[in-house]
Amino acid sequence: MGVNGYGTIGKRVADAVDAQPDMEVIGVAKTQPNFEAHTAVKRGYPMYAAIPERMPLFSEAGIDVEGAVDEMVADADIVVDCTPSGIGAENKALYESHDTPAIFQGGEDADVGEVSFNARANYDDARGVDYVRTVSCNTTGLSRIIAPLREEYGVEKVRATLVRRGGDPGQNSRGPINDILPNPISIPSHHGPDVNTIFPDLAIDTLGLKVPATLMHVHSLNVTLEDDVTAAHVRQLLESESRVYVIPEGLGIDGAGKLKDFALDAGRPRGDLWENCVWGESIAVEGRDLYLFQAIHQESDVIPENVDAIRAMTESVDQAESMVTTDDYLGVGITGDPSGFSNEDEAEAVTETEIADD
Amino acid sequence: MGVNGYGTIGKRVADAVDAQPDMEVIGVAKTQPNFEAHTAVKRGYPMYAAIPERMPLFSEAGIDVEGAVDEMVADADIVVDCTPSGIGAENKALYESHDTPAIFQGGEDADVGEVSFNARANYDDARGVDYVRTVSCNTTGLSRIIAPLREEYGVEKVRATLVRRGGDPGQNSRGPINDILPNPISIPSHHGPDVNTIFPDLAIDTLGLKVPATLMHVHSLNVTLEDDVTAAHVRQLLESESRVYVIPEGLGIDGAGKLKDFALDAGRPRGDLWENCVWGESIAVEGRDLYLFQAIHQESDVIPENVDAIRAMTESVDQAESMVTTDDYLGVGITGDPSGFSNEDEAEAVTETEIADD
Repeated sequence: MGVNGYGTIGKRVADAVDAQPDMEVIGVAKTQPNFEAHTAVKRGYPMYAAIPERMPLFSEAGIDVEGAVDEMVADADIVVDCTPSGIGAENKALYESHDTPAIFQGGEDADVGEVSFNARANYDDARGVDYVRTVSCNTTGLSRIIAPLREEYGVEKVRATLVRRGGDPGQNSRGPINDILPNPISIPSHHGPDVNTIFPDLAIDTLGLKVPATLMHVHSLNVTLEDDVTAAHVRQLLESESRVYVIPEGLGIDGAGKLKDFALDAGRPRGDLWENCVWGESIAVEGRDLYLFQAIHQESDVIPENVDAIRAMTESVDQAESMVTTDDYLGVGITGDPSGFSNEDEAEAVTETEIADD
Repeated sequence: MGVNGYGTIGKRVADAVDAQPDMEVIGVAKTQPNFEAHTAVKRGYPMYAAIPERMPLFSEAGIDVEGAVDEMVADADIVVDCTPSGIGAENKALYESHDTPAIFQGGEDADVGEVSFNARANYDDARGVDYVRTVSCNTTGLSRIIAPLREEYGVEKVRATLVRRGGDPGQNSRGPINDILPNPISIPSHHGPDVNTIFPDLAIDTLGLKVPATLMHVHSLNVTLEDDVTAAHVRQLLESESRVYVIPEGLGIDGAGKLKDFALDAGRPRGDLWENCVWGESIAVEGRDLYLFQAIHQESDVIPENVDAIRAMTESVDQAESMVTTDDYLGVGITGDPSGFSNEDEAEAVTETEIADD
């Protein structure tokens, strides 16, 4: 497997694939020899130049380059494209020219792939498909909640307000500062139609905003269900989902900052939260209207989905086996216990290795 | 009229009352001689000490004090209590002991008054009543939208996500910084029940959050209507409301920051936006579901409501005459025209007076 674009998503995909028993990272491609390139070298990933003319820059920076990106594409069984939005679509011709199947990220338009993908909702749709798009962080977060609700109760309509972080922690030229921006101002936002790439017949209206925060998105979610249910029953249902963490009352986790502290304390790589983080206390039912708040870690929630997309496309194993394998080897899953990170020991082991490497 | 508590709300109420042709500010009471006390002196409002023992502090600061707050309460026909949440309820005994009617703010529990008040929705409920509570900034903002929608189309259910500013610009010890907090985490928030003090039979569920911004709240609003309507019809309806400003497309107003710039450019006192600011572009209808975004200036939207409450309680004029008088003399109302502030000339006059005073 090759990773084209080794930034926020790419570096996480490479590590997640590297952790799987049935996959190998044959290389990563970057446009420039920045700090992330040095990280890739330390982790032992062969480096390819995404822009061949820039190879000397890598050498000057002390980074050995294996070759140009098209060599990596030619050698790979599959490429995960993690380049910025819009570049993925431009790269598609390269993958096609080498008959190399590819996974694109959710920033691309839906038609870049034959299928838009969420492991929980439509794994089988990607079986044997050559070009797949894993949906965005927000769409992934919505799909993981909607899928079990639809199966268990039926969904009449979804209304979601997405209170989005203005930029990632490293994106220091983005805003807003001290403002609350309807974004887009027009309603509905594009997120609803994106969810419809996963659930074509779902009635969903979404509203987007951007605020001065960097850590996670927060969704204010309303789902009108077809059945009469209790909040307790919904909570139990969501607690049974491996990629949903229902935050227990009493832990003092009141926002994204404490969620990240919690993940970092547990030794999670980069403090990642691959799971939807749903506040248990927020789950409420009024009539057939279900409400909840969930936080979505925009840098990492799509990572397990990319790993599963590889298995679906290569038809190696079925949905259940792929998801369990991904979760086990990556360390996805948090129990209600505050020390319940399933990956705690492994994460510590990774940290020790890294320190030894340093 | 006396104002007890001359802070964010009190200083605005005093100026708004002072601008009315049928009202007079007989005094304002403060706990300490801070910068706002000096402003009150400059504006010519007699100063009373809210805590009598502190009178010497005012003298030391060069501020003449007329007396203690109970003298002001005894002399006033009506007191507007603008003290911090919870203090108003403690002050009620003082007002009762002098048989002085009083208006409380929305931070108090509903039972502090016999009636909770919004001029547009239930003016007549406060006629001749001695203790009235004007509802909070958020409840005021919701009531102004719900009232015309109920009258025109009927409302089946309201679902609102309130993305609230963490604190006012001067409240520099408040947060969050770089976080998006569900607040309260439990759903529904207290805002829905507060709206029910205005519309007792309304079905409404509200969800609250706090974000790192100080300028205005932003509401993501969904109203399921009883009639089938078009977005254009709703827009026309809201444009006809004097205390709702439908932001036209094309002005480049994309958030609270530009709204405040717009108000300051127009010479609005303190850059206040007394009106709900609804993005015209956001008004959308899907089936019978209406959606819109509105920004609410938490420091000022309740000001005209306090003025109208005085007239309702004293039974001087009817709802329509009171609201028109308040709006005319305060300068409430923005037309679609970018230079359409109705108070532009008056605001400039105020500014000039202040500069001459300084």
